[in-house]
Amino acid sequence: MLISEMSRQECCDLLARLGFGRLACAHQNQPYIVPTYFAYEPEHLYGFATVGQKIEWMRLNPLVCLEADEVRSLVQWSSVVVRGRYEELPEKPGYDSKMRQQAEVLLRKRFMWWQTGVAAARTREQSNRDIPVFYCIHIEKVTGHRASRDRRPYRYRTSRASVPSVVTA
Amino acid sequence: MLISEMSRQECCDLLARLGFGRLACAHQNQPYIVPTYFAYEPEHLYGFATVGQKIEWMRLNPLVCLEADEVRSLVQWSSVVVRGRYEELPEKPGYDSKMRQQAEVLLRKRFMWWQTGVAAARTREQSNRDIPVFYCIHIEKVTGHRASRDRRPYRYRTSRASVPSVVTA
Repeated sequence: MLISEMSRQECCDLLARLGFGRLACAHQNQPYIVPTYFAYEPEHLYGFATVGQKIEWMRLNPLVCLEADEVRSLVQWSSVVVRGRYEELPEKPGYDSKMRQQAEVLLRKRFMWWQTGVAAARTREQSNRDIPVFYCIHIEKVTGHRASRDRRPYRYRTSRASVPSVVTA
Repeated sequence: MLISEMSRQECCDLLARLGFGRLACAHQNQPYIVPTYFAYEPEHLYGFATVGQKIEWMRLNPLVCLEADEVRSLVQWSSVVVRGRYEELPEKPGYDSKMRQQAEVLLRKRFMWWQTGVAAARTREQSNRDIPVFYCIHIEKVTGHRASRDRRPYRYRTSRASVPSVVTA
């Protein structure tokens, strides 16, 4: 298997196409991951949830990471990692209502995007469970890797005889 | 869509079956996610990598989170989240060599588990790129959710007419 780096444009194309990934936030250096839908725009990702641990933690610490991948086989896949900053998009005077509207328009295109958030809130039985939280992730850095078959023989260095010494993919 | 909680046993069964997920670590409250293979044992997950950002960050901060999921459709999926603690399993006197051996035996069962780590190291062109790092994640908490179809009509509360007011899955 050969792993190569993806260009920024290739990363963005994959994010735009997939619209689904895993979002990590952190509180007191404890990371937390949840699967999430998103809508890609140049420099931004838009997302939606109801209030829960993810939103609470991102409010406390806006540093986030999102990973999205497309796995065709064990040796053919692409994975993009976004480092970004969370910003909530509330419906309040003083906030950027244009971004909020844009988030809603883009997310509406995703089939049943709202159901995951609402159903998760239902499970948590919160008093504010039906209130949608729209947010934006400002993309600060994006990197991607692609794996493909590699026919070259490769010597794997190890002290243990139990691991194959030559592998090809 | 209806989301229900999974029992601990159901979570563990899914982890044992999948052996693939996304691992998040954090450094100075910045989370980072990478796709990863793992082998499940009660109370532990075993993993393998070569030295890179993930290993460097987990050495600095052992608090990690792993998410594994099985998505059959938009409304039928299971997702398990593990909160855990990283421990490296080096081949040195004084360390638990039994766990290291167990990690290798279990990970060997995963087809080409070693290739991702080696290929990634190749890409990074590190001097220590061929040295495998085996590690264990001590499971401290595991939770899981399962989504299934829900035929009940559901009123979605919003102030915007642009979002459907009644949805069914």
